[in-house]
Amino acid sequence: MQHLLTGIRMLDFTRALAGPTCTRMFAEMGAEVIKVESAPGGEMGRSISKSCNVSKSGSERSLYYIQQNLNKKSLCIDFGSPAAMDLLRELVPHCDVVVENFRPGVIAQLGFGYEELKRLRPDIILCSISAMGQRGPLAQRPGYDYIAQAYSGITSMIGEPAQAPSIPLAAVGDISTGVHGAFGVAAALLHRARTGQGQWLDIALLDAYYHYHEVSVHQCSASGGAIQPSRAGRQMSYVCPAGVFKVRGGYIILMAFMHHWADLCRAMERPDLEQDPRYVNDTERLARRDEVVAIIEGWLERFADANAAVAYLESFDVPCAPVLNIAQTLKHPHLVERGTVRTVKDRLAGEFQMPGMPIKTSGYPANNELQAPLLGEH
Amino acid sequence: MQHLLTGIRMLDFTRALAGPTCTRMFAEMGAEVIKVESAPGGEMGRSISKSCNVSKSGSERSLYYIQQNLNKKSLCIDFGSPAAMDLLRELVPHCDVVVENFRPGVIAQLGFGYEELKRLRPDIILCSISAMGQRGPLAQRPGYDYIAQAYSGITSMIGEPAQAPSIPLAAVGDISTGVHGAFGVAAALLHRARTGQGQWLDIALLDAYYHYHEVSVHQCSASGGAIQPSRAGRQMSYVCPAGVFKVRGGYIILMAFMHHWADLCRAMERPDLEQDPRYVNDTERLARRDEVVAIIEGWLERFADANAAVAYLESFDVPCAPVLNIAQTLKHPHLVERGTVRTVKDRLAGEFQMPGMPIKTSGYPANNELQAPLLGEH
Repeated sequence: MQHLLTGIRMLDFTRALAGPTCTRMFAEMGAEVIKVESAPGGEMGRSISKSCNVSKSGSERSLYYIQQNLNKKSLCIDFGSPAAMDLLRELVPHCDVVVENFRPGVIAQLGFGYEELKRLRPDIILCSISAMGQRGPLAQRPGYDYIAQAYSGITSMIGEPAQAPSIPLAAVGDISTGVHGAFGVAAALLHRARTGQGQWLDIALLDAYYHYHEVSVHQCSASGGAIQPSRAGRQMSYVCPAGVFKVRGGYIILMAFMHHWADLCRAMERPDLEQDPRYVNDTERLARRDEVVAIIEGWLERFADANAAVAYLESFDVPCAPVLNIAQTLKHPHLVERGTVRTVKDRLAGEFQMPGMPIKTSGYPANNELQAPLLGEH
Repeated sequence: MQHLLTGIRMLDFTRALAGPTCTRMFAEMGAEVIKVESAPGGEMGRSISKSCNVSKSGSERSLYYIQQNLNKKSLCIDFGSPAAMDLLRELVPHCDVVVENFRPGVIAQLGFGYEELKRLRPDIILCSISAMGQRGPLAQRPGYDYIAQAYSGITSMIGEPAQAPSIPLAAVGDISTGVHGAFGVAAALLHRARTGQGQWLDIALLDAYYHYHEVSVHQCSASGGAIQPSRAGRQMSYVCPAGVFKVRGGYIILMAFMHHWADLCRAMERPDLEQDPRYVNDTERLARRDEVVAIIEGWLERFADANAAVAYLESFDVPCAPVLNIAQTLKHPHLVERGTVRTVKDRLAGEFQMPGMPIKTSGYPANNELQAPLLGEH
């Protein structure tokens, strides 16, 4: 298969999500990824999302495993067997990269730590992915996404101010961490081509989550704590109006701060609001946010639904969007046309939709024929 | 500066957040990034986060700009001047990569679309970053993070079920999209080294957000809509107990599903619960989630605070974490030691903290001396 990363070979010790995302992106771009799974059952991902599998074959194939492991090869071994360990040691010199997401220290106990790998191949690149990183007092914490999210301060920034924080039911930490790892590996391969040197990458969910703070960290720090960033429910906290608004049967996102406010006032046929000193800029509107939201939501009641409200507002250049649910995304013309959502045809599980490959290139159009391996298939 | 990407030169037309994140990661790893800013004021990021700047110099330097533009060079030009355009055209053949995040089509109007760039340098790599992608019916939508988030279905997965969705007050779309772009560019550089060919990358916030759905899309699709994934507040929807729990003075994340439930029962000194058929597995506990949460939160009342609860639970191997606020992250020993949070010393704004570089490598320790450019400095 020809793609951007054709010719690169990876030995893949990853399980579940962050690690498999890193190696799956390489596999989807043409790298040869040899996934090492533990006998007899294979990796834990094979047990997730089987119950909803309404496949025609009646098999118990995991849709979760398929999604995270497209185009990889599966090598199933007994980690307790010396012969299997010898086989892995024979493979290492033929691989450019090793990726693992065990708890820190485990890969070394298995005999494939960075020092050992370097002896087998001096310019090897090892990418270690973990929840809290390879070093530091919290390094041995269990590797769940929400644990890293809580320590990163991100959880504290989601939900209504006077209530418990909400957790996003999507892998905003694991997937992004996998992409951070993929970038690190690609950068290390460019470096190896120039210098002949290998590298050990230490990629953590904690660091990827913390990387999301575009303003909160520097504002809290530089103000000496005078600014205490915190969650603000469904509205942004430093411009207004900007956030989620109720419409008949659903919600929309509406961004009408700064110069967009004038466009919204025109759309609402309320020139009085545009002139009113109480609403003249974001600072004044923030001071009266509940009033501003009530005015807008009162006006929005005239629309039949989110799509009608969005169509009207867009004709006045007001930035907005319907809050789509998952079912709506599956058939949205833009998402389908772009391949944001794609249909795969698994040999056993049949046809279903999953997120598309998010790196779109001019040279290699999307390939929807990729398969995930059966356990030990290769 | 020696680092993984030393020797690569980028022409950077980006503004605000997703684009600058992509090029800043290259700059922090040693690439020469020439940021093109529009006279007279420079890019919009220079106007954000000035108010909280308590710098000793009394300057009005933007901390936001510093954070997103470390180690870049600034070239300030008048986009209306033919001489300036000539100068940019002279630069292109010396650059490996061009990155832009204008609204789709604008870079071509400026005379630097992919076809024009290819004439100037046949193997050029152009990375176009946008909210909804370069093509498709929604391509011209305005580029705000939450608009892409709403269309991706992610917004619908955050918040209490019977209430409006909440929006995270952190750039979980923009930053991750920048990292997706950085990976795409690095992969295209590896491909160029092998084939001599350039590439045009189409990177969208919508696609990066959609990529986060690790189970929801395939579950909704494969069940024919019988499963309708939706937000579930502060608890996970398919295992139990797992989510946010109230403690004295704050909240913790507690993951006590599957085999962790037995450990939690031991920690609570409630062997009866472990045997009780009403709580015997995740399915049963999910059916009685409110009861389960009430039992745990009642028991948690005995602890003085989140840290005390976490320390006790960890001694029983129950995965958990305190929900830290931003101020707490700034001084947490693990985050400080790892460089998850770092202190920068800007020439004008002085010393403050911001998120660290999330790609940590064995060969090149963190460098906290990097500076963001003054407007037109280079």
